[in-house]
Amino acid sequence: MKTIGIIGGGQLGRMACLAAHQLGFRSVIFTDQKNSPASFVTDAVIVADYSDQKALKEFCKIVDVVSFEFENIPFETASFVASCVDFHPRAEILKITQNRILEKNFLNEIGVTTTEYVTSNFEENLKEFGKAILKTATMGYDGKGQRILQVSDTLVSDTFSTEMILEKFCPFDSEISVMVARSKAGEIKAYEPLTNIHKNGILDESHYPAKISEGLKIKAQELAKKIAEKLDLVGILAVEMFVIGEEILVNELAPRPHNSGHFSMDACVTSQFEQLIRAITGLPLGSTEFHSKGYMKNLIGDDVKNIEKFFQNPRAKIHLYGKAEAKPGRKMGHVNIFE
Amino acid sequence: MKTIGIIGGGQLGRMACLAAHQLGFRSVIFTDQKNSPASFVTDAVIVADYSDQKALKEFCKIVDVVSFEFENIPFETASFVASCVDFHPRAEILKITQNRILEKNFLNEIGVTTTEYVTSNFEENLKEFGKAILKTATMGYDGKGQRILQVSDTLVSDTFSTEMILEKFCPFDSEISVMVARSKAGEIKAYEPLTNIHKNGILDESHYPAKISEGLKIKAQELAKKIAEKLDLVGILAVEMFVIGEEILVNELAPRPHNSGHFSMDACVTSQFEQLIRAITGLPLGSTEFHSKGYMKNLIGDDVKNIEKFFQNPRAKIHLYGKAEAKPGRKMGHVNIFE
Repeated sequence: MKTIGIIGGGQLGRMACLAAHQLGFRSVIFTDQKNSPASFVTDAVIVADYSDQKALKEFCKIVDVVSFEFENIPFETASFVASCVDFHPRAEILKITQNRILEKNFLNEIGVTTTEYVTSNFEENLKEFGKAILKTATMGYDGKGQRILQVSDTLVSDTFSTEMILEKFCPFDSEISVMVARSKAGEIKAYEPLTNIHKNGILDESHYPAKISEGLKIKAQELAKKIAEKLDLVGILAVEMFVIGEEILVNELAPRPHNSGHFSMDACVTSQFEQLIRAITGLPLGSTEFHSKGYMKNLIGDDVKNIEKFFQNPRAKIHLYGKAEAKPGRKMGHVNIFE
Repeated sequence: MKTIGIIGGGQLGRMACLAAHQLGFRSVIFTDQKNSPASFVTDAVIVADYSDQKALKEFCKIVDVVSFEFENIPFETASFVASCVDFHPRAEILKITQNRILEKNFLNEIGVTTTEYVTSNFEENLKEFGKAILKTATMGYDGKGQRILQVSDTLVSDTFSTEMILEKFCPFDSEISVMVARSKAGEIKAYEPLTNIHKNGILDESHYPAKISEGLKIKAQELAKKIAEKLDLVGILAVEMFVIGEEILVNELAPRPHNSGHFSMDACVTSQFEQLIRAITGLPLGSTEFHSKGYMKNLIGDDVKNIEKFFQNPRAKIHLYGKAEAKPGRKMGHVNIFE
C-alpha cells in the first residue's frame, strides 16, 4: 500500500488526496499552514516551514512518492525532497514554471509560440508593443502581480525590486486550457481543451466542449503533449493557451492539477486528480474521454452563499473545500454543471 | 462547517467520509479497530470499544451529526450517542434491522411480503417448508450464520444458544436491491433496482439496469419508499428483494450504504454515500438518476491481484479500500464497469 505525499495543503491537494484514497492509497500533506483544506481529509499532516529540512526529512520517511499542488514552493524544497524520495514532476520543471521568463524561454526554445515578451528596456518596448502587460516573473497567480499598460503610460523606472517581464498585449478570441498527463512509462494523454472565462482576473467558468474548431482542438492537445514530452514530465500539466483565429499562443504552464481541469472530476472517466495519482505511482493512465458536456463554475467568496440553488439542481455536482471563512476572491468550492 | 461522525471504520465508512469531504464537511470515525480503512482518510479517529461511554462522549462533543456504516453496533451504543447528538437513522431502526425476526415482523406488520418464517418448532416446520434456511437472528452477514436444510435433515435440537429463525427456502428468479434515501425534511428518493449476483454467499456483482419488467422496477421502488417512510428513516436504506415471476418478497434491510449500491458512485448523479450525507445534514436529496449502464464487481480476496487488467480498461472505475492484506472473503475494493 503506497503512501502519497503532497506538498501544499490547498484545495488541489485536498482533491488529490480524495483521488488517492479512492484508489486505496494513503496520503500525507506537508504544508506551512495550519487547518489547510487538505489537512482535514487525511490522517497525516506535517505543518512546518517549507525550508525546514528536518520536517521535510520526516515527511520523506513516511511517504513513497511525492508531488505538489502549487508551483510556488521553493525550488530548494523540491530538490531536497527529490534527493530523498521519488518526486514528480521533477524539480527542474518547477524551476521553469515558477518563472515566467524561464517558462517563455523554454517554450520558444522548443518551438512553441507565445506572446511577444521582453525582460528589459520596458519603456522603449512598451512603445513598440503599444499595449502590454507588466508582470512579476515569479509568484503571480489569479491576476496578482500584473498591470496592464497603455502606450501612453510612463514607467517610473526600468528597474524593479523583483524580476519583471513585459508581455505584448494580445487581443485573443478566447482562452482555452488543456490538461496533459504523462506516466512514468512515458505514456501521454491529453484531455480535450475547455474554454475559460475569467472574472476580475480569476477563473470563473470552464466550458466543455471548447468553442473552437475541431482542428484547433487537436492542435491544442498536440501542443500540450509536446510540452509534456519536452519537459520530461511525470504527473499532470495545465497548459493555458490563447486562441486567435486559427492560431494558438501558449500563455502559461502549471505542472499540477489546475482549476480549469475540475470539470474532469464529474465529466470524464478519469479526473485530473486520479490521473496525477496514476502517473506518479506507476499505474497506466486512465481514459481522458469526456462522457458529459457542461461547465465548471467556481464558487468564489460570497458565491458560496448561493450554494442552496446548486443543491437543488439535479444537474449540478458540488465540490466544497471545507474553508471556514468566505473572503473576497477566496476559492470556496466549485460546481460542475451538466448540460 | 459541519463535522460528521461515523460509527464504524470499514470501507462503507471510508467512502462515506470521501463523500462528506467532497461536500466540504469534516469527518470523525469511531471504531473499535486500529488501522481501519476509514481511519486513513480522515484527520480524526477515535479507537475505543463500542461500549466505552467516555470515548463515545468525546466523540459526540466533536461532531454535529452521527451515522453508522454497519448495523451490528450495539443498540446501547446507538441510543447513548443519540441521547448526546443528532443521530440518523434513529436507533430504533437499528434495533429492528439487527434482528431478522424483528425485521420480518415489522415488514409483515406494514403489509410487506417476506418469505415465510418461524421462530420455533423448527423440526416440525422444516417438514412443512420442505427446504428451509436456518439463520441466526442476529449478527449474520455475507452468508455467515446460515445453513440450508433439506426436509430429510434432522435438527439435533430445537433449542440453540442464540436466537434462530427458520425461513422457507424460496426458489426466486433473481435478487434485486433498491437503495432508498429519506431526508430530514421527509423527502424520499429511491434509486432504480439493480440485479445482484452472489458467489459463495457474498455479493459478487450488481447490474444496472436490473433484468426485470418496468412494472416490477416501479413496484420495487414503491416498496422501498414505503419501508423508509414507515421506519421514519433519515439516511439511506438498502432493501434486498427476491423476484419470483411478477412478485416481490422483501428479504433483508440494511439502514446504511450497501455493497449493492456502489455502482451509484460512478453511474449516478448522486452516489449513495453523498445521498446519506445530504440526508443527515439537512440538505435536499440529490438526483438518483443513472446516467450510465453497467455493473459493479467486487474485488474479494485475491481478486485484487488482477487489478492491473481493470487499470488498463478505460471503462472501469476502480475503488480500493486501502486494506493491507488480501484474505479470502475479504472485500478489498470494487470496480464499476460501464457498458
